[in-house]
Amino acid sequence: MADIPTLCTFTSVDSHYSIKSASAVLGIGADNCFNIPTDRVGKMIPEALEAKIVECKRDGLHPFFVCATAGTTVYGAWDPIPQIADICEKHNIWLHVDAAWGGGLLLSPEHRYRLNGIERANSVTWNPHKLMGALLQCSATLIRQDGLLFQTNQMSADYLFQQDKPYDVSFDTGDKAMQCGRHNDTFKLWLMWKSKGMTGYAKQINRLMDLAAYFTAKIKQTPGYEMVVEDPEYLNICFWYVPPSLRGFDPAEKKARLEKIAPKIKAKMMERGTTMVGYQPDKDRPNFFRMIISNQAITREDLDFLIEEIITIGKDL
Amino acid sequence: MADIPTLCTFTSVDSHYSIKSASAVLGIGADNCFNIPTDRVGKMIPEALEAKIVECKRDGLHPFFVCATAGTTVYGAWDPIPQIADICEKHNIWLHVDAAWGGGLLLSPEHRYRLNGIERANSVTWNPHKLMGALLQCSATLIRQDGLLFQTNQMSADYLFQQDKPYDVSFDTGDKAMQCGRHNDTFKLWLMWKSKGMTGYAKQINRLMDLAAYFTAKIKQTPGYEMVVEDPEYLNICFWYVPPSLRGFDPAEKKARLEKIAPKIKAKMMERGTTMVGYQPDKDRPNFFRMIISNQAITREDLDFLIEEIITIGKDL
Repeated sequence: MADIPTLCTFTSVDSHYSIKSASAVLGIGADNCFNIPTDRVGKMIPEALEAKIVECKRDGLHPFFVCATAGTTVYGAWDPIPQIADICEKHNIWLHVDAAWGGGLLLSPEHRYRLNGIERANSVTWNPHKLMGALLQCSATLIRQDGLLFQTNQMSADYLFQQDKPYDVSFDTGDKAMQCGRHNDTFKLWLMWKSKGMTGYAKQINRLMDLAAYFTAKIKQTPGYEMVVEDPEYLNICFWYVPPSLRGFDPAEKKARLEKIAPKIKAKMMERGTTMVGYQPDKDRPNFFRMIISNQAITREDLDFLIEEIITIGKDL
Repeated sequence: MADIPTLCTFTSVDSHYSIKSASAVLGIGADNCFNIPTDRVGKMIPEALEAKIVECKRDGLHPFFVCATAGTTVYGAWDPIPQIADICEKHNIWLHVDAAWGGGLLLSPEHRYRLNGIERANSVTWNPHKLMGALLQCSATLIRQDGLLFQTNQMSADYLFQQDKPYDVSFDTGDKAMQCGRHNDTFKLWLMWKSKGMTGYAKQINRLMDLAAYFTAKIKQTPGYEMVVEDPEYLNICFWYVPPSLRGFDPAEKKARLEKIAPKIKAKMMERGTTMVGYQPDKDRPNFFRMIISNQAITREDLDFLIEEIITIGKDL
């Protein structure tokens, strides 16, 4: 039997499934990755996190990793990083910030405050293939502690990582990664960044945030639409379309019938070939649309069209 | 403390470093990945494998995974899969065949016998970005047991893998993979295969094998060259170039001096911009060149040039 502590990890119930998946793959076990509850808008509740950490310690587990999400997948919510960082510091736990989706906001001087506290993280994930518009795949993992990746991953294969080369071998970064041969994913990012610059990216991202505000305002004032989260803080706008035939029902009946509406509308959209918006249920909420505004070619007219198209397809359901 | 068995894995000392790396990443630990000795040509010694398995069991470890390599990185050696499969069967151990480099040979009716026994594997790695010439990256992992990847990796994220879609959701394979969003690496392979067909690939691969035989024969008959493995069984040809100034020394002195020759020649090649061949030391063997013939554009003239170029650069060292 192994004489090793049972590690456990923590992430919000609204975080990306890859966090639990990573716990499974790394041998920690999906069951030892605990989901911390979130509030109405999808942010992790710090008090619930600390309570769970204390409970795990009492049960003989070894809490070692907390993931705070900056921009959750469904709601685009921002976990309160400073409070989570305080808890991690107090309990000596590694703080990871999953900014895969939200990291791009750091390029906007106006909006980057949403990620305040990220500078306290031990590690950060950031996928330029999301908000920054690089083609799949382009993902970065940043680790604060210098040299840690080498310490962890180095296998020193002498058929690859010769030290007697005629150039500075610190450019050979392969031995600090888990993968060996792989696609050069960073080159396209470098080109995009060179081309747009910090100013260009700030402009692009601010424009998307403006479009999201426009879309939200419009959804709110259009009869038949209901917001899932009243005031979105990012580019995810979650909403229901309630066809006239459902509007008279009591809440329970309405909810049961609403579950089937978004899938029907989406299938019809795909059939018509006009537009495509994803949907999903969440906990006690029936299937709702999740509009993500991240394509820089989107215009206000496209958003107006989408709102009309859903009504056209859904009004007689 | 965890009440779990201590797993251990086995792979030849000449296998790719990713096998040990995977043991580290998966939480098994690099120290619990045991390297089995190989013979003079680089093949795993089955008796040594079984002895190590028995020893591990006696020590209270739980052997569960053996990797046999089909086409090793340095020597292009073929581990004896049938004998290894017998041992795995006897001890109830998962047999993986790392055919990342060698798998392409399956497309040649003349040469595929080198992989005999691979049909007994529980899993196989095969990288079309190696012998098959697909651009980086294009890697396949094949698992015999139907449904196992779903059982192992499925996280059922309902914001992605909705079951109420208007098409057959068995086409949504994302939930059986460890990664979520990723590059479509298989499309280029599909195009290449459609274009070349089985016949075209067989021809391409047979031609490379012929070129390797040509190069080997030429190296053997050219003064100053010495083979590391006398009769290569794949496309890796490992050799030393011994400059005239070293030829009079006793073996120990010659070996010490030879260590510095290949790095010097390679650096000079890069400087001249003419060609580039990798080198590495291995166990008690000083730095030697490892020529890999896998680019389908290579001609006999290129190989003649390389042999002359090394002499031109190295003869006065």
